[in-house]
Amino acid sequence: MENHIQFLSAAKVLALLDQRRLPEREEYVFCRTTADVVQALQNMTVRGAPAIGVSAAFGCVLAAWEAGALRNWRPRLKILLREILEARPTAVNLAWAVDRMRRLWKPEDSLERLLEIWIREAEAIREEDLAANRRMGAYGAALIADGETVMTHCNAGRLATAGFGTALGVVYAAMESGKNIRVIANETRPVLQGARLTAYELNMAGVPVTIACDSACALLMRRGMVHKVLAGADRIAANGDTVNKIGTYGLALLARAHKIPFYIAAPLSTIDRNLPDGESIPLEERSSQEVTHLAGVRIAPEGVPVLNYAFDLTPAELITGIITEQGILRAPYGQSIAGAFAAEPSK
Amino acid sequence: MENHIQFLSAAKVLALLDQRRLPEREEYVFCRTTADVVQALQNMTVRGAPAIGVSAAFGCVLAAWEAGALRNWRPRLKILLREILEARPTAVNLAWAVDRMRRLWKPEDSLERLLEIWIREAEAIREEDLAANRRMGAYGAALIADGETVMTHCNAGRLATAGFGTALGVVYAAMESGKNIRVIANETRPVLQGARLTAYELNMAGVPVTIACDSACALLMRRGMVHKVLAGADRIAANGDTVNKIGTYGLALLARAHKIPFYIAAPLSTIDRNLPDGESIPLEERSSQEVTHLAGVRIAPEGVPVLNYAFDLTPAELITGIITEQGILRAPYGQSIAGAFAAEPSK
Repeated sequence: MENHIQFLSAAKVLALLDQRRLPEREEYVFCRTTADVVQALQNMTVRGAPAIGVSAAFGCVLAAWEAGALRNWRPRLKILLREILEARPTAVNLAWAVDRMRRLWKPEDSLERLLEIWIREAEAIREEDLAANRRMGAYGAALIADGETVMTHCNAGRLATAGFGTALGVVYAAMESGKNIRVIANETRPVLQGARLTAYELNMAGVPVTIACDSACALLMRRGMVHKVLAGADRIAANGDTVNKIGTYGLALLARAHKIPFYIAAPLSTIDRNLPDGESIPLEERSSQEVTHLAGVRIAPEGVPVLNYAFDLTPAELITGIITEQGILRAPYGQSIAGAFAAEPSK
Repeated sequence: MENHIQFLSAAKVLALLDQRRLPEREEYVFCRTTADVVQALQNMTVRGAPAIGVSAAFGCVLAAWEAGALRNWRPRLKILLREILEARPTAVNLAWAVDRMRRLWKPEDSLERLLEIWIREAEAIREEDLAANRRMGAYGAALIADGETVMTHCNAGRLATAGFGTALGVVYAAMESGKNIRVIANETRPVLQGARLTAYELNMAGVPVTIACDSACALLMRRGMVHKVLAGADRIAANGDTVNKIGTYGLALLARAHKIPFYIAAPLSTIDRNLPDGESIPLEERSSQEVTHLAGVRIAPEGVPVLNYAFDLTPAELITGIITEQGILRAPYGQSIAGAFAAEPSK
């Protein structure tokens, strides 16, 4: 699972563990073209903001090989990069990774030279993400006391990143430091990343995990069964407003009502400093079939419309802290986020 | 659908529309024995507090026929009544209906006499429920303005009652009075009564309905897409504390955070005046398979435990009003509930 994103340079293939099939089957999807990568991003073969960023970076390499078949490859490559960048609208790591690759491309570079630079850069993005997750884990672990139960939403773990996890990285790091931690994984309708992916990876790692329906959060909090809430992020604005999987905002409100600390864990690559606040972050709407069909079986009456926003916005004031590789940021987030970027060696 | 609970006296059969199969198939389950009725209650062939009460009353009649096969039928009947009463722990209408039947049973009654009394009483319970729903609808409709969108949880409609509905009865009555009303039906995991049953019956009745995942409530409220929240109840304590489908408590907290009125609609038969508050109401825990399997397909990893509380408790202070057949009760509920019972002809 540490290798759920495998780049096979000699074979010119990006192999992605198919997260749609987990936990039943561990199967890989082999991407050879830009269209393959775009499809894998859109159909959620791979998901999770940092994992999307890493996959997109390797996707740029595939795009370069693909465009390289043409004599006049440069305009074609530009188009292919844009297709990758536009595959999904919400997670900023996608644009961040493609932009980072694009900035390294000098007009005079040969295709061979560009490929050399890009393969190295994509590997660097992957390694940096893993390292950032480890640092987030070390910072965040200090927030969790021995014996506590963490509630988490969606999957912000190994499968959502290059390999350790953001919110779940904090859990793994707390475990590694010798604390007994339990996790309640919200199932996270409609795509069930909590019940399928978070339960799967925590269980494999030996972390005690229990699944509950999203609608049970409030009761479990009221009964004192939740000590901390940890979630990941798809995009964070410069003021700390955070867009994450649908349900995160409600969870933050319920945590506040029960006086339970609510943390976001995300690398700086998830912070979009171009946006003063979160109101303009696009919230992807996905197919109604995600809601109306379960395991291929229709459960809702035909002809009834569905609202299927994949993400929601949690205002910064509901967030106790943002766990990053530069430490735990606190309100006022405008200042603490700017400070974290100032401390970061620029890339 | 008005006849989803059909008592066929000549055939000695209670026919229940199988709500587990809706909306795909409209099939009836035929109960001939007490065990059949207990099973139908437990496996949720029939569900919804008032519908459980009506079904249990007819179940008592089946029990009398069954016990009547014995010469010494009275002790056997007592045992069978207890089995019905204990079929499910949370909805008080079950105990309420069985108790009401039991109180009419005089030691000197012949089996024939008892059957005559009980069949009349079960029919009366059904008729009274329908009439109470109509009155609730008339009171509640005044709360909903033309053009408003109501969010509802689980199914508190025709299928949950003798035939008109509590929360959805209010919607039907508002529609009948000429108002344009829209409904957002929370899908209501794990059993999906919202996506399956509420969407089905509103759609059949021509009420515009949209399905959303439970986790989307907060976002939809924040976007101003919800004007009122209406839910049913499984048991209400003397102080107004309300137990209803899991997720109702969270919904009430989110409604408060967004300043959206939150109403419970329930007949007086759902109020348990023996309980000063809701803390001692048993919250049924159901099989983990409801969560781990979708349409018979396992989605969660094997061996991972599940918390599957079927109900939660909404404290009275989060409830804007309780819509009953005696009018809309307001805080302090201790007083208004006592007043509603005083106004009710005792049965």
